[in-house]
This record gives sequence, C-alpha cells and structure tokens, in this order.
Amino acid sequence: MKNIAILGSTGSIGTQTLEVIKAHPKQFRVIGLSGGTNLTLLREQIKLFSPKIVSVKSKLIADKLKADVPANIKIVYGEEGLIEVATFDEVDFVVSAVVGSIGLKPTIKAIEVGKQIGLANKETLVSGGHIVMELAKKHQVSIIPIDSEHSAIYQSLNGENIKQVKRIILTASGGTFRDKTREELRNVTIEDALKHPNWSMGAKITIDSATMMNKGLEIIEAHWLFNLPFEKIDVLIHPESIIHSMVEFQDLAIIAQLGTPDMKVPIQYALSYPDRIELNSKPLDLTEVGTLNFRKPDYERFPSLKMAYQSGKIGGTMPTVLNAANEAVVEAFLQSRVPFIEIESLIHNVLDQHNSIINPSLEEIIAADLWARNAVKDLIINKGW
Amino acid sequence: MKNIAILGSTGSIGTQTLEVIKAHPKQFRVIGLSGGTNLTLLREQIKLFSPKIVSVKSKLIADKLKADVPANIKIVYGEEGLIEVATFDEVDFVVSAVVGSIGLKPTIKAIEVGKQIGLANKETLVSGGHIVMELAKKHQVSIIPIDSEHSAIYQSLNGENIKQVKRIILTASGGTFRDKTREELRNVTIEDALKHPNWSMGAKITIDSATMMNKGLEIIEAHWLFNLPFEKIDVLIHPESIIHSMVEFQDLAIIAQLGTPDMKVPIQYALSYPDRIELNSKPLDLTEVGTLNFRKPDYERFPSLKMAYQSGKIGGTMPTVLNAANEAVVEAFLQSRVPFIEIESLIHNVLDQHNSIINPSLEEIIAADLWARNAVKDLIINKGW
Repeated sequence: MKNIAILGSTGSIGTQTLEVIKAHPKQFRVIGLSGGTNLTLLREQIKLFSPKIVSVKSKLIADKLKADVPANIKIVYGEEGLIEVATFDEVDFVVSAVVGSIGLKPTIKAIEVGKQIGLANKETLVSGGHIVMELAKKHQVSIIPIDSEHSAIYQSLNGENIKQVKRIILTASGGTFRDKTREELRNVTIEDALKHPNWSMGAKITIDSATMMNKGLEIIEAHWLFNLPFEKIDVLIHPESIIHSMVEFQDLAIIAQLGTPDMKVPIQYALSYPDRIELNSKPLDLTEVGTLNFRKPDYERFPSLKMAYQSGKIGGTMPTVLNAANEAVVEAFLQSRVPFIEIESLIHNVLDQHNSIINPSLEEIIAADLWARNAVKDLIINKGW
Repeated sequence: MKNIAILGSTGSIGTQTLEVIKAHPKQFRVIGLSGGTNLTLLREQIKLFSPKIVSVKSKLIADKLKADVPANIKIVYGEEGLIEVATFDEVDFVVSAVVGSIGLKPTIKAIEVGKQIGLANKETLVSGGHIVMELAKKHQVSIIPIDSEHSAIYQSLNGENIKQVKRIILTASGGTFRDKTREELRNVTIEDALKHPNWSMGAKITIDSATMMNKGLEIIEAHWLFNLPFEKIDVLIHPESIIHSMVEFQDLAIIAQLGTPDMKVPIQYALSYPDRIELNSKPLDLTEVGTLNFRKPDYERFPSLKMAYQSGKIGGTMPTVLNAANEAVVEAFLQSRVPFIEIESLIHNVLDQHNSIINPSLEEIIAADLWARNAVKDLIINKGW
C-alpha cells in the first residue's frame, strides 16, 4: 500500500491521479489533497477518498470547508498548508501537480523529509533544478516524471546506462497553431489557442503548447531530470503525439515509448514504478492511427524553443526568469491583456534585462521569479495594453 | 575481452559480426570460425582475425584450406566440425548464424558446455525450442536474439517484468511482394523475389520475407524466446522497417526499438549486452524518413502467417515440419523447380500429412525434419515439376 498526497488535486493531472488511485484501492491510498479554490470538486474528492489532510488556497476557503467535512480531517491553507500536505507524516509519495513555480517550495520540503516524488510540475525543475536534484540525491529520493515526454524517456531508460545515451529526443505535437505562419498568428483568439490537437490539458499548458514554450520548459526539465547537457537534448515535431519521446544510445538503437495521448499512463507508471499494473483505458491501435509523421522544428517560427536552449545553457536564474516571465505573460494573455503574437517578444525582453545569478540559493530563485513577474507587468503597462 | 565463435562466418550475419568485432578489438576476439564452402572469403577472414579453429563443409575443402593457413590453426569439417567450433574451450560466446535447421545441434552442444549464445538462426528455436530453452535454463545460458525483431523486443523488455507484458508486436515490412495480390504472384521470378525493399540479407531469408514465412518463423521463435503464448504475439505491417518491434505492457505503455534497417545494431547488442558500445554506422533520422505507416496483416494473402500460428499452437514436431518443409520448398524455388505462387500450398500439403509428436526428443525432431524434406521432394516429383 502506497500512501499518497496530491498537490493540485482539482486540476487535470490531480483528477486523473485520483482516477488511477480509485481503480487500484489495494495498491494506493489517498492521505493528503490540496485543491486551490474549487470547493465543490474538493468536497467530492474528500467524500470519495477520505484523506487525513486537505489544503486550500486561503483561510477563508479553509473555514468554509471545515464546516462541511468531518472534524478528524485536518484543513490547512496557503503555501504553509501545501507544505504541510507534502510533508505529512504518513505520506510515502507526493504527486506534485500544481501549476507554476508555486510547486517548487513544497516539493523541496517533501524531498527533505524523504518523500518519493511524482513530478508533473515541470516549473519546479526549470526554476530550481540544481537545488531539487541535489537534494533528491542527498535524501535518496526518486523523482519520477509525470510529463508524458519525460515519463517516456524514463521508461526508455529503464535497465539502461545513462552514460551510454547519445541523445534524447523530445517529441512535440507543435501545438494548436503548428501549421500557421507567424503572420497568421496575429488574429488568433484565446479560444483558438485553447484547442490542443491531441491532449486535453489545463489552460496554461495548452497555451504553452501553442507557443512551444511547453517544449522549451521540457528541454530544461530533461536537462535536470536526466543530468544531460543541452547538446544531447533534441526536439522532433510529431503531430500525432503517439511516440511520446525517445532515447538514442551510442550503439544507434533508439528506444521509444508509445501510446494514445492519455496522461493516465505516465501518472500510473509514476505511482506503480518499478511495476506496471493494469490500466483500464484505450490501448493504442497503430493500424487505426495508420501514419506517424515527423519533421524538424522551426526555431524561427517558434522562438520559445530557442529561448529555452539559450536560457538553459546560461543557467543560474535565467531559466527561472524564463519560466516566471512566461507564467506572467500567459496569465496576461488569458486575461486578454496581451495578444498571442506578442507572448514571445515580451518574454525575450525580460530575459534581455536579466543578469543571471549562477548557482542561486532558493531565496535568490524566489527573488528572480518575482522580479520577472514584475518586469512583465511593467512591460505591459509601458505598452499601454 | 569476449572470446567469440561464429557459426556461419561467410554469410550475411557472419560477415557483419566480423565487422563489429573488427571495430572493437579491445572488447572482442575471434576464436572460432565456420564457413561452409566460400574458401576465398574464409582465407581472408582467417588472415584478418587469426582464429584458433575453423570449420568448413567437407573434408575435401578442409584439406584445401590446411595447405594455405598456419599449422597452429585447427581445421575441422562437417557437422562434427561445426560442433567442435561451437564447444571450443576458449570460446565464451557463440554467434549461431548458419542458415536452416543445421544450426540446431551445434547450438545445443554449445549450450550444454555453458557458452552464451547470440542467436541469428531462428530455425533452431522453431525446430527445437522446447529443448533449447530448457537446456539454456539448466545451464544458465543467455540466449540473446540477433534477429532485428527479437532483438528489438529483448531491448524493449530490458529492466521490465515479462509477467507484466500484455502482448508483443512483431513488425513486418511485408516483403518484396507486399503490394501484389495473390493473382499477381503467378508470374514473379526468382530475381523479383530476391529484391527486399529494406533489408539486404541472404537468399533464403529474403524469399521467406516475400512469403512472410519469415514472420511466421519469428512468431514461433518469439514464443520460445520470451516464453509467451501465441495469443500474446501479434504481427503488424510496417513497410518502412524503422520500428523493429514493440512490447505492450498491461499498463498500455508500448516500448519499441527503432533504427535504420542495419543488422549491425542487433549483432553488436548481442555481443556487448548488457552494455551498449559505440557503433560507427548511419543513425536514424526520422525527419528524413518523414512518415511511418502501419496496417493489419492479411492472413488470406499471406497463408504462411496462418500456418505458423496453427503449427505453433499444435506444437511438438509440427513447427519442425513447417520449418523443414519451408526450407526444402524455398531451396526448390531458388533452383527454379517450384513456382513462387505454389510455395505455401506445398508446405500446407506437408503439414496436412504430418501427425505431430508432442514433446519430441532431439532424434524425433531430426527425423521429422528429414521426413518433411522428403515429403516435399515427393510432392514435387508427383507434380511433375
């Protein structure tokens, strides 16, 4: 029996994690939930899974929730609450599935008390990869990726020697606007941007897919997760999202993981690793798919990819700023305050203003993150948007 | 340093094995060669690799060879010679790459003295799988497949639990005549049949690809190699031969091995396993390939596939007879004594005549093999061809 805490239980990954747990009541038990502001869903989850601790966004919401649930369920809130869930004594395994760099601190705290981590929050590694991976090593904690691409690479590396890897190949659908020129991006709407061709995901990651910043963040995530230089991390456009990613070894053999675009596979793999248990979902039928296509990514069309490689290679707080600027700009886009076509140039502008601090402390990371968000705000105000 | 003997050193797999060994002189050393009748090539190989023992087809050829090589190289011949090479004291690893069921006995003898096996000779497992695998278990011998498909599955299973496999998927190019109807097969020539779309291989296996009997034999080979029931072995037509085969696990994740159609990859993997060492060959560029296609195999168009499943499920000496009948019919086809379109019906006829002996001894296997070859001869004579 694995005792699980889910940070971000009401989001897309969180709800699917609960579906996986529900299907395997003998293997997994929910101990902690953390669910932001969606009280209706959180109440349902509490009823169904009887956690021992639940965290919400604010004291106000916490007080509301306390009135509805049995008194033996501990209700906490805010960042402290999130950390309390992540470090709760009975928890073995923490699924870190909140969105954005808010996931960094609770994940670090969970590692420090020896919890195993299922990591769906890529911003944690983008922002503070060197701290997180060093701590994981020190506390002998496994960080099992829940991103479909990184899970595919993790699976492809199973039983293999990372030193014999020639390169990893992150596949990318190319997102909603894959076949549009930059010129054609001028008039796209939020609704257009929220339609992903293959994956059903949250709003932020869907926009990140449309700009391919998602793939950019994944490049940096992969760098930390697999301890590989950026020269060994490639991106390949694969519109069907069937091959979830690949590893090429020095003997030229490529090992890949394939499947339907179904996040339950990497979620369950992280929970059941090193075993694979039955999953009641739609299997991949390649004769139904018929054709898989591949092409090179266009780094001019998708400047986010180039910014990610550059920020990653510079290192220090530069990826933190890339990530925080992106979060702030995407949030502004989703509030109709920034046109889609300007997302990358705003981020680029913020990166240009930043002098990277090498080997930053957690405090320096948090400060750089905050600085980048403010820099985005200033830019938007200056533009008069 | 791994000391290697190659059974079938002048064939397609044998020469490529020697190229791999030549590129890694610190890892591999040739101890034994066995090379049939191609004396010119064998002399070159002896000069280059200085083996300690060499086997040829007959005493006549052995006497000829003795005159040309240093006296400290032991020259042997015939089946006994093949066995002597396979069991030679200094040998650690035997590459079994002769063509046809002649590979069975030397492989068994090598296993009995504890040699590790690289198996390119699929007929060994088709004919005597139950004996070979039981002996391998008893003598703690690893049998590492060199067939590209089985190597792909072996690689995909690395680090995994075979009990968690839902099915394996053998990919098949469909061979030279993939897009012809059976009617269009009436007038194909030997030259047509010898043109494989993707792989450069020996004559027998190229014809087996055109009838898809090669895939049929691979189904039975996979059954023994991975200890899986036939219900868990599927075939998928994949014209480009880039995905070499796949494993679907019970969590619906599929792990696959990809690469250019280059036998050096599985050959070197078998030699270097569990490590992967550098291979100087052409890497796979999926953006160059562009598209991978998949479709269901047509069991009416390719009756060999159906015969293989049926023979495999019946078991006993039935697969032996399938394999021997196929060898004899393909030989007759290559001698222009049988039209291509009749290959499957002749084999089917021989299978119909055979009553399978369950759990046969090696002697019973050899007798069934001989019986099937004679049955083919009789059929051809009766047809007046």
